[in-house]
Amino acid sequence: MTQVGKPARVREHVRTNRAGLLTYGITPPKQSHSRERLAEIAAAQVNRIRQLPIDGLVVYDIQDESMRTEVPRPFPYLQCVDATEYALNQLAQLTLPKIVYRCVAPLSKEELVQSLRRLDQSSCLSVLVGAASRHQALSLRLPDAYAVARNECPDLPIGGVLIAERHEQTRAEDQRATAKMDAGCGYFITQAVYSVDATKNLLSDLLYRCEAERRSMPPVLVTLSPCGSLRTLDFLHWLGVSLPRWLENDLRRSRDILQASLRVCADVLADLHHFAVNRGIPLGCNVESVSLSKVEIEASVELTHLAARQLGRDSAEK
Amino acid sequence: MTQVGKPARVREHVRTNRAGLLTYGITPPKQSHSRERLAEIAAAQVNRIRQLPIDGLVVYDIQDESMRTEVPRPFPYLQCVDATEYALNQLAQLTLPKIVYRCVAPLSKEELVQSLRRLDQSSCLSVLVGAASRHQALSLRLPDAYAVARNECPDLPIGGVLIAERHEQTRAEDQRATAKMDAGCGYFITQAVYSVDATKNLLSDLLYRCEAERRSMPPVLVTLSPCGSLRTLDFLHWLGVSLPRWLENDLRRSRDILQASLRVCADVLADLHHFAVNRGIPLGCNVESVSLSKVEIEASVELTHLAARQLGRDSAEK
Repeated sequence: MTQVGKPARVREHVRTNRAGLLTYGITPPKQSHSRERLAEIAAAQVNRIRQLPIDGLVVYDIQDESMRTEVPRPFPYLQCVDATEYALNQLAQLTLPKIVYRCVAPLSKEELVQSLRRLDQSSCLSVLVGAASRHQALSLRLPDAYAVARNECPDLPIGGVLIAERHEQTRAEDQRATAKMDAGCGYFITQAVYSVDATKNLLSDLLYRCEAERRSMPPVLVTLSPCGSLRTLDFLHWLGVSLPRWLENDLRRSRDILQASLRVCADVLADLHHFAVNRGIPLGCNVESVSLSKVEIEASVELTHLAARQLGRDSAEK
Repeated sequence: MTQVGKPARVREHVRTNRAGLLTYGITPPKQSHSRERLAEIAAAQVNRIRQLPIDGLVVYDIQDESMRTEVPRPFPYLQCVDATEYALNQLAQLTLPKIVYRCVAPLSKEELVQSLRRLDQSSCLSVLVGAASRHQALSLRLPDAYAVARNECPDLPIGGVLIAERHEQTRAEDQRATAKMDAGCGYFITQAVYSVDATKNLLSDLLYRCEAERRSMPPVLVTLSPCGSLRTLDFLHWLGVSLPRWLENDLRRSRDILQASLRVCADVLADLHHFAVNRGIPLGCNVESVSLSKVEIEASVELTHLAARQLGRDSAEK
């Protein structure tokens, strides 16, 4: 199994609504590291990621979301290296395309144009994210950012975030998604998924909305995020990820929460993949590795291989 | 595959918290039928039920629940033949044990004692049900009915109703269940299940409550109810059964809603059975046949055979 490698091919797959895309998602290191330590971290990541059977590398743009909720953040927020910087410079050795998240709220129009052009020239992709809460200082709004992307980099595939938990409350996430598609959004990546039914509800509502409006269903990458400790579980809650209570009961009582969550993530993907194949939904998968702990990183690598098998990539890519 | 037949054996299985019990559930015919027509209906049911691979026959006690909600009832309410009467007289030819529902609200203590004694003498079982709403005229309360059963028929196994949808709202159904167990309830039968996660949540919470309180987890029979039309779907909603929206989307758009719901019911049982086996929950199954339409009745028979295979009864009973 080898990496697809050619960035242009992934952009093409996204444009043609191909099913089965597989990505691996990382956060850039903290800015507080020394230059040497940063180089070491990047080298270790390059080595690890190079061996993964993936189409692209997702690089998150981590914002301080503590204004979103009054609940204290389980892990402290530390400023990270700029995602575009990190993806294009420190990880330059990785030839596979990067899918770089960009939180547009704090940016000026010029800053956004500049980073989108750099991504476009490197045959990368981007995901635009709006403000985390109404309270975040806002320079650029998401619809304006989409307009900027459309006008300045019409060939750069722009993705959006899809949140099933929001859909359970508002039942409007499908409409929000098609509004983003009207603005130029070509694919979606979900928040970490532990609630299969909520995700099926959103996929189903979006599918039938697309059918009714005679549009193609866009590729949706479901994000899997292994959970290695009760503290990480609390962090998932803090981020707004919901777990069915039976699963929460099981994880809190499991002797090895990491292995248990790994099995759950694999089951989640198997269930959603089966669901998507039966309905012609172009489903892909994004395995998140946002932890610094060695065992959690190893679990994300294992899960990536499991996901590749689930998506039938063993045979397809050989 | 033959029927277990011996009533005493089923009572013993319930007492020893055996997994894998399988029942078939019917409603008695309407009281408005002529005597001859009633005899015909009973004969047809006897013939059909005799061939099913089940441990017992559930006979519901249908009440006019229209006071429970302001939504109009999709099917008119018609008074049915008394459940105990019907089970013990018209279906006397069926030697398998009957599990007779008894809505206690309209009964006097004497009426309840009388019908419980008849069931006890016929080696049957009972399920006691409280008032459908706070507005129903109330002669006997459920805790008093349990006390009556305990004192008058201590050997008669009494079951209770378990409603996952109520647990989603109150998170207290597990506590309600253990309170019923304290009052003498030895097994549970659920409302029709279309929401797997809600049911897993309730089973999980009840299991861990039983563990914490050092009790045995009681047998729980999950009820499967094939749905043959949009009108039946509306009726399920009216009864308080909730379906995940993706499933509702699928059923409403399916060309053959009955076959689609049959597959869903089989999947629901497979999923819950797997869940229960992994956790040591003594799960059983109750296939409901509450419709009068021929195709829906045939579907319930097919589903009963599927459930028997799922519960591994082919080999166990041969």
